Amino acid sequence: MAGAGLSGCAAPTPAGGGPFSATDLARAAALRDAALRSPLAWELLQSLVTEVGPRAAGSPGDAKAVAWAQSRMRQLGLAQVRAEPVPLTTWQRGATTAVLTAPSRHELVVTALGNSIGGRELDAELAYYPDFAALRADTTERARGRIVFIDQRTERTRDGSGYSRAVLARFAGAVEAARRGAVAVAIRSLGTDQDRIAHTGAMRYDPQVAAIPAVAVSVPDADLVAQFQASGAPLRMQLRLEATGTVTATSHNVIGEIPGSDLAHEVVLISGHLDTWDISPGAQDNGAGCAISMAAAKVLLDAGHRPSRTVRVVLFANEENGFDGARAYADRYKEVVHQLVGESDFGADRVWRLRSRVAPEALPTVAAIGEVLRPLGIAAEGNDGSPGPDAAMLMRLRKWPAIELTQDGTRYFDVHHTVADTLDKINPATLPQNIAAWAAVAWLAAQSTQRLGPLT
Amino acid sequence: MAGAGLSGCAAPTPAGGGPFSATDLARAAALRDAALRSPLAWELLQSLVTEVGPRAAGSPGDAKAVAWAQSRMRQLGLAQVRAEPVPLTTWQRGATTAVLTAPSRHELVVTALGNSIGGRELDAELAYYPDFAALRADTTERARGRIVFIDQRTERTRDGSGYSRAVLARFAGAVEAARRGAVAVAIRSLGTDQDRIAHTGAMRYDPQVAAIPAVAVSVPDADLVAQFQASGAPLRMQLRLEATGTVTATSHNVIGEIPGSDLAHEVVLISGHLDTWDISPGAQDNGAGCAISMAAAKVLLDAGHRPSRTVRVVLFANEENGFDGARAYADRYKEVVHQLVGESDFGADRVWRLRSRVAPEALPTVAAIGEVLRPLGIAAEGNDGSPGPDAAMLMRLRKWPAIELTQDGTRYFDVHHTVADTLDKINPATLPQNIAAWAAVAWLAAQSTQRLGPLT
Repeated sequence: MAGAGLSGCAAPTPAGGGPFSATDLARAAALRDAALRSPLAWELLQSLVTEVGPRAAGSPGDAKAVAWAQSRMRQLGLAQVRAEPVPLTTWQRGATTAVLTAPSRHELVVTALGNSIGGRELDAELAYYPDFAALRADTTERARGRIVFIDQRTERTRDGSGYSRAVLARFAGAVEAARRGAVAVAIRSLGTDQDRIAHTGAMRYDPQVAAIPAVAVSVPDADLVAQFQASGAPLRMQLRLEATGTVTATSHNVIGEIPGSDLAHEVVLISGHLDTWDISPGAQDNGAGCAISMAAAKVLLDAGHRPSRTVRVVLFANEENGFDGARAYADRYKEVVHQLVGESDFGADRVWRLRSRVAPEALPTVAAIGEVLRPLGIAAEGNDGSPGPDAAMLMRLRKWPAIELTQDGTRYFDVHHTVADTLDKINPATLPQNIAAWAAVAWLAAQSTQRLGPLT
Repeated sequence: MAGAGLSGCAAPTPAGGGPFSATDLARAAALRDAALRSPLAWELLQSLVTEVGPRAAGSPGDAKAVAWAQSRMRQLGLAQVRAEPVPLTTWQRGATTAVLTAPSRHELVVTALGNSIGGRELDAELAYYPDFAALRADTTERARGRIVFIDQRTERTRDGSGYSRAVLARFAGAVEAARRGAVAVAIRSLGTDQDRIAHTGAMRYDPQVAAIPAVAVSVPDADLVAQFQASGAPLRMQLRLEATGTVTATSHNVIGEIPGSDLAHEVVLISGHLDTWDISPGAQDNGAGCAISMAAAKVLLDAGHRPSRTVRVVLFANEENGFDGARAYADRYKEVVHQLVGESDFGADRVWRLRSRVAPEALPTVAAIGEVLRPLGIAAEGNDGSPGPDAAMLMRLRKWPAIELTQDGTRYFDVHHTVADTLDKINPATLPQNIAAWAAVAWLAAQSTQRLGPLT
């Protein structure tokens, strides 16, 4: 049913030996320009965030989101719409409180880090470290019996590199602290804001090292701790977590397609992830990416040209806490040729850069794609791209080639993984440029006479 | 002890018949310029916010703040430092939760309004009003049995007029809703932010009208309600409040002075309020005003000239929830001539305007004061001033003349009455200009040969 109305002809032969025919390039430019007039990503995003809201993998909100996504994909006219089961274990945040009790009493704004153990009430001195490197460099007994505080700052950057430099403090802070005998770890939220809101996010334990509770405090609360630390006064904290984990549940990858013609068995994958952290409405992370990918597919459908390869929209399950959706997908489709995988998962601001991870012989193809994106203000910058997290997982596991369309992440970490990732943080005016970029990339990847992978 | 080192001479006779001698004007300019180099307000503010933190009137934090203020005033060298008892009744916020249950389920970020009753669990449809005027204009039965939602927006303005236009929705919303049979009232937070943080603040009941619970939801949550309302779907909300009130307690006005010489029995009062809302660290509201007033007095002390009139710094108790401190002060000092009352209570950004409330014959004196403030970028703008809230109460109750030094309030309502009123919201660079303005005003008011009041 879906795909009806698409003309069935395969890609015309390229002229002049390039990877694309003049017709396909003209169609790519037309798709791109049509997408710039599309309000669809905003409409889908608004619907998802307001009608569904928070949707942690395995939660009732997640089930609602899975139903929402299938229903919307069918309405848009995508084919083969389905929800593919993804087994996972859930984690429940529970109440989390932290009170600084010395040198003076302050109730802190705090949240548990994802996967933290709970069931503990602690009251201990703080061992302060200005950053994660300082903790790792510590060979003393200073942390023993204490709550380690990691005051790692997250620098505001356009490309997210500030977050990348900071993220190990969250992910591995508990393990490094426990190795040194700490009873818990508390970190400065990985946020570029000054809101009194704590940022959650995934952390992991090492089976060889004691599991200790892990929390993030809001940035202003970390400032308070830092100020007391500078004064030289000993700090003490009470910490209580009710987190529980390891309940088995099922989520789903939601998939819809535009069937290809002559190369229908090869897949061009564009994606987002449907899940959020339990506390987050997930407008930026990652309602926007889901909406952009769905809207890009609709632009292709509306253009009326059947692609040579199959264009597949995937909304992954549980990106936030374990990549279970990406892993299940990689397992299920391991035999299928993927011409390209891509994911929009860095908010909703404009795309400014194209980077690839393709086989060297495909670089001229990427350059030709870059030419089509150039009028969108997107610059092509090499083959060391870092695609969205699920796409990166697929790339690693399956050597599928990948594309990165880098969004402007300057504001992204202001509300990342918080209750404040709400619809008002989205600029509706920047969404169409994202649709345009993904639609043009998907179309050209589907039409290219050049295979983009596999990677070696 | 305090005041030692001040030269004991009274004000020289004015030259040319104006209210100020050339010496006093020169000293005012010198005070002003010395204050611009003072880091003291920042140091005091940092100390108060970090060492004491939230300090709701009658709470343990308040008692700590009262001790802090007396200790600091003595350290600064003020005389007659004392804490004068202020009886009051406290109110306990307790846990407050709100869940939108239709058209889809969303946990809202919410807080009780100050003085709201609690002990209720409600589950009712919403009756939506775009603003308070719409509620007041409603003569139908639409609100009966429902939770009234007032979507009153707070416009960002430099002078706070946006807040003034909105504040009745908070203060009187419950009464107007209850008059129409509503079971509770929920308002859009009176905030200019888009943070997911609810703004509290005082509300009142009318003994003639049923008391119903009153809450504020965060701005993004109000956006969500508005969006559902626009879609035409019926809205439902569950509301639970544990607020309790009417516990008798004692707070204190904290007072310190620079004793006057020939007119020592007349008082020039500069002030802030020491209390905060229970949830707020109170950096802007009103740690800044306390710090600025104390620092201004220190600049006067450091200059070494004993003022003609007594300069009194007052840190009022319980401005936030009933003006008990101002009322107690007005009662205790009703027989004392007050040459001027003023209060810094609009954050920590620059003063841009001087307005007065003085007797008409004193207008040339105010104009002369304005000339001294002009180099600070402060413009004199008439005699219809609106001094800080405690000062305004004194002016109303006692007809004491008053001065308004209007701060730039553009950012003020981003964090007003929230957990986010933290130290990082303060720009240390704007504080010295505030000290300079208050020091110059206090000095000139103390020296003037012209009485500024009483008002008629």
